[in-house]
Amino acid sequence: MIIVLKADQPQAKVDSFIEKLTGSYDVQVNTWVGAHSTVLGLIGDTTAVDEEYIAAQDVVENVRRVQEPYKKANRKFHPEDTVITLPGGQKIGGGSLALIAGPCSVESEEQICGIAESVKRSGAAFLRGGAFKPRTSPYAFQGMKAEGLELLSKAKAKTGLPIVTEIMSIDHLPLFEDVDVIQVGARNMQNFELLKRLGKLSKPILLKRGLASTIEELLMSAEYIMAEGNEQVILCERGMRTYETMTRNTLDISAVPVLKRLSHLPVIVDPSHASGISWLIEPLAIASAAVGADGLIIEVHNDPSHALCDGAQSITPAQFDSLVKKVNTVFDTVHSL
Amino acid sequence: MIIVLKADQPQAKVDSFIEKLTGSYDVQVNTWVGAHSTVLGLIGDTTAVDEEYIAAQDVVENVRRVQEPYKKANRKFHPEDTVITLPGGQKIGGGSLALIAGPCSVESEEQICGIAESVKRSGAAFLRGGAFKPRTSPYAFQGMKAEGLELLSKAKAKTGLPIVTEIMSIDHLPLFEDVDVIQVGARNMQNFELLKRLGKLSKPILLKRGLASTIEELLMSAEYIMAEGNEQVILCERGMRTYETMTRNTLDISAVPVLKRLSHLPVIVDPSHASGISWLIEPLAIASAAVGADGLIIEVHNDPSHALCDGAQSITPAQFDSLVKKVNTVFDTVHSL
Amino acid sequence: MIIVLKADQPQAKVDSFIEKLTGSYDVQVNTWVGAHSTVLGLIGDTTAVDEEYIAAQDVVENVRRVQEPYKKANRKFHPEDTVITLPGGQKIGGGSLALIAGPCSVESEEQICGIAESVKRSGAAFLRGGAFKPRTSPYAFQGMKAEGLELLSKAKAKTGLPIVTEIMSIDHLPLFEDVDVIQVGARNMQNFELLKRLGKLSKPILLKRGLASTIEELLMSAEYIMAEGNEQVILCERGMRTYETMTRNTLDISAVPVLKRLSHLPVIVDPSHASGISWLIEPLAIASAAVGADGLIIEVHNDPSHALCDGAQSITPAQFDSLVKKVNTVFDTVHSL
Amino acid sequence: MIIVLKADQPQAKVDSFIEKLTGSYDVQVNTWVGAHSTVLGLIGDTTAVDEEYIAAQDVVENVRRVQEPYKKANRKFHPEDTVITLPGGQKIGGGSLALIAGPCSVESEEQICGIAESVKRSGAAFLRGGAFKPRTSPYAFQGMKAEGLELLSKAKAKTGLPIVTEIMSIDHLPLFEDVDVIQVGARNMQNFELLKRLGKLSKPILLKRGLASTIEELLMSAEYIMAEGNEQVILCERGMRTYETMTRNTLDISAVPVLKRLSHLPVIVDPSHASGISWLIEPLAIASAAVGADGLIIEVHNDPSHALCDGAQSITPAQFDSLVKKVNTVFDTVHSL
Repeated sequence: MIIVLKADQPQAKVDSFIEKLTGSYDVQVNTWVGAHSTVLGLIGDTTAVDEEYIAAQDVVENVRRVQEPYKKANRKFHPEDTVITLPGGQKIGGGSLALIAGPCSVESEEQICGIAESVKRSGAAFLRGGAFKPRTSPYAFQGMKAEGLELLSKAKAKTGLPIVTEIMSIDHLPLFEDVDVIQVGARNMQNFELLKRLGKLSKPILLKRGLASTIEELLMSAEYIMAEGNEQVILCERGMRTYETMTRNTLDISAVPVLKRLSHLPVIVDPSHASGISWLIEPLAIASAAVGADGLIIEVHNDPSHALCDGAQSITPAQFDSLVKKVNTVFDTVHSL
Repeated sequence: MIIVLKADQPQAKVDSFIEKLTGSYDVQVNTWVGAHSTVLGLIGDTTAVDEEYIAAQDVVENVRRVQEPYKKANRKFHPEDTVITLPGGQKIGGGSLALIAGPCSVESEEQICGIAESVKRSGAAFLRGGAFKPRTSPYAFQGMKAEGLELLSKAKAKTGLPIVTEIMSIDHLPLFEDVDVIQVGARNMQNFELLKRLGKLSKPILLKRGLASTIEELLMSAEYIMAEGNEQVILCERGMRTYETMTRNTLDISAVPVLKRLSHLPVIVDPSHASGISWLIEPLAIASAAVGADGLIIEVHNDPSHALCDGAQSITPAQFDSLVKKVNTVFDTVHSL
Repeated sequence: MIIVLKADQPQAKVDSFIEKLTGSYDVQVNTWVGAHSTVLGLIGDTTAVDEEYIAAQDVVENVRRVQEPYKKANRKFHPEDTVITLPGGQKIGGGSLALIAGPCSVESEEQICGIAESVKRSGAAFLRGGAFKPRTSPYAFQGMKAEGLELLSKAKAKTGLPIVTEIMSIDHLPLFEDVDVIQVGARNMQNFELLKRLGKLSKPILLKRGLASTIEELLMSAEYIMAEGNEQVILCERGMRTYETMTRNTLDISAVPVLKRLSHLPVIVDPSHASGISWLIEPLAIASAAVGADGLIIEVHNDPSHALCDGAQSITPAQFDSLVKKVNTVFDTVHSL
Repeated sequence: MIIVLKADQPQAKVDSFIEKLTGSYDVQVNTWVGAHSTVLGLIGDTTAVDEEYIAAQDVVENVRRVQEPYKKANRKFHPEDTVITLPGGQKIGGGSLALIAGPCSVESEEQICGIAESVKRSGAAFLRGGAFKPRTSPYAFQGMKAEGLELLSKAKAKTGLPIVTEIMSIDHLPLFEDVDVIQVGARNMQNFELLKRLGKLSKPILLKRGLASTIEELLMSAEYIMAEGNEQVILCERGMRTYETMTRNTLDISAVPVLKRLSHLPVIVDPSHASGISWLIEPLAIASAAVGADGLIIEVHNDPSHALCDGAQSITPAQFDSLVKKVNTVFDTVHSL
């Protein structure tokens, strides 16, 4: 951590500040005196040093962190890739491409079972489907809730596909017993109470990047879960908010290789939410497979124009089938380079 | 709502789509046939019409809403300003400038009571103070929690200042009995389960704009609370995320007059979080008072350089005292123009 | 074009406005009268209708364009892909992957000729190299200017590679005689006087997307060039400005398929400027080839750590050689799907 | 400047890098050796040190500047406010509020002279009016060009108001003889060749912040002009591009106090372009006067609904007259606090 002091501070104040630093934290402090400013360098474990606290000190002009503020999610301290393995043997990470597919919302037993069977045939290893739906408008369809989770369980029983579905409140946790991978949506990426509670579970958490969160904030939210003991976190890039209006969000494709370099956690991409447009899903899925993603989560609906939500960004089972063949080919090609 | 159809659709498909619209919603549909496209215009109550559902239809190229998707927060249907009045007579909205002040975090009885007395003397009508703190890092101070709420109650007992403090989880609600105004932080603006639960209370909710939320999304989140019956919502502009790094966030000063035009709800500004820099708070507070804000929420700490959080953006009681005189003068000047 | 009128306008004002519309433009106007608003629909050629002029009218609440405001760049009016073919037979567009490579700046004859030969061996069909350099700081190296252009010509004479280089001012145009493809940099994307002048040339123009320009603005800038007669425009996605700081810019990978759908012009990607980080160039180049780009423009320097600019985002000739093999394999794989 | 080295670099490489630094620049280098990284601190004049060059070195992990990269625009080296004084005595900076008003575009002698007389009566000290207009679409009205400049001269002759108007190309400079303040528009803020040329003039330059430029980039563009000898630069905040669509741009009100702290140059605000909505101009002008701006540039049109451009954001002379009284009252109130 580098701390730049304000110009012309009395030496006594500077000395007392340095004493405070070495007294409060397990760090050493080096000092440079320049023409216009004095700079302090903190060496040691600065993860516990609160940047805001430092920045608030009288003598401080500004402060910059050199080391990453996350530990458990940090590849430096955990060089090997984390591979998530489900009881049924399905994997996320570790050199294969995990395909998670299903409708935005569970709508009926027939719908979810039909789609589950179909995406399984095409090669999906996981079934997604929303039971609790975060919608911008209180007047929009909010999901089938508990009933939706039951229907997901039926689809799982029929197909063997593990369930990936979103949680919106700690209170709903008892309903998630049969859920295999619990998803934290973009709007809840910094719902820290929820993250802490999920950190006490022993099942994988799929953590989506917030609407306008930085890569570092995503890793810090993963750290919240991991710090409680649950190290099975899957990171998901799903597009960020920008000024561009042609797509719903802007897929930050660079986030995939950056996250994989900074962290050992698996990284998947959600091209459906990133684009919001069905015809864009295939090219973005292919690009994601090519750039090094460990998986894809894709909205598939048997009848997109009657979907109760997100129909505009859903593809049909036939389109998914064609997409799977292509992304697998590209993934294999890139991995054999 | 304006729906542009794809070019060259068979008339039968168009007709069947129009029938579906008039059958499903309480709307009339007008049709124009142009050279390159056919356009439908929906007239009636389109609040219930799901844009995404429409956009997903086969025949649809794109869809644009003409009417606002919020009703209860909408000034068109409620032209008079909403004024929030607390049992002690303190008001937010209605022509005065509500001043909410206090530390980022409650740290001790001495601290919170001291600051409360001091800001009261300077003219604050409300005491703010965090008991549950949303922090990016799991390793940072997370607030005094239940104990912090108790200390806030003590400060209230001593000073009569109503308490404004943030809730982070529905589960903590029982602890908020003595809280006068419950704050929803930026990170939870779209924690819809929390909003719905707060909508069932009969106390005012201070709703902060999300880190990168649009003005319309803020109003839709207010609508979530109001749709459940609680119409006492205070909107708060606290800076948005942009590419500029000189300030922590970018204060969207235009949001104040825009929100006041679109909605009847009171609008306050948080210059502390918007800037993240203590010397910027006074000019931004003055600008906010000048632009028409109904109040200010400001971080004041007796000893910013020892604050357990957000010290860099806290001002001292003396600075607050000077600020209050200035913002009141500017507010009065502008209101007498 | 859809025009929403303000509520409660006197009929006479509305009628006079409609007359003005049909009198000024070659359009028909349809009218719907709704409960809260009246909406006009303009049918015909609305390219010439000035949205701002309409929006300023007394009776108008807001106005939205349904048709794209660009014509010559629009795929609707020109369904076939444009393929740029140079005198030497090199192509951009039309099913192959054009590789443009070279140093950020020309630094010496030895440097530029050496790199040219090397990238040619690896498969580049075009040589890039900056002679006039737009630098944020007036104190940074500004390029070798006229001398740099001469050295590019020497490298072209030796290798046969056509030259791609940036122009920063109309005044420099006489020096660009021997340049094969003139590049307009991101900072000049809306230097309309420059675009108009380049529109009178008969050589290809490589137009980079502005630092924070929308996809539509990029197409409108292409339209400026094309409207003057020069239809040989190559569009280039080079990353957009966002709040994310981990990469220099955020590569908008979706822009590639979106641009190719909206326009017939070839689209290339610049992964060097998009990321600003050398190790990210290969994965982003692979993703771009996979998503459908018609070419790549990549900074290659024989000695990045001594490059006079942009060394941090340059790769070595050996890295480029390896990259070319990979992107070609991926491109071929995707095109054979 | 702080340079963090990659972990585990051989000492010889580090030593040779340090030698290179002290050999190339007028700086001293201090070294800290930490557990995970070695950090170098450069002390001395680092303005000439090229960050990108440093970042590209093999041994470097990252580099951060501590000192500002601008000198002539920097308040540290020029503590007194710069005041621009025109031959006629009109001032920008120095404790008064400069009002610049006039139409988006010059349209006729009658129009420009009429508006000039009217805004002068209301208190404007400068006349603005566009002769060369940067328009997104090549099909939109591009301004009256040379004829527009002549009409501005006539209005100046009649009223004595100095002219503020935009230049779009170096080639047009001979036409700008009678122009008093030359404006560089947002789209040309980084048209460095234009900036350098304007730096050789001895008349004031009004430099608008780019569509998505940082505060530091704005200061670096001012530095381009000042480095050539012309120190009469006026900075203008005119709204930045964000994801919010309710306003055309987002006025960064914080930029005013930040710029005034970092630089001695006068800072004005353009509420017309910042908002794009006529009813927002007054509140934003008031907020700007309250926050410390040295002036305002406002679009005034005698008949906004017939304006040839930007009518939606123009106010009438009567509205301007009312606005002037209000902003002057607020400015005086704030300055007397």
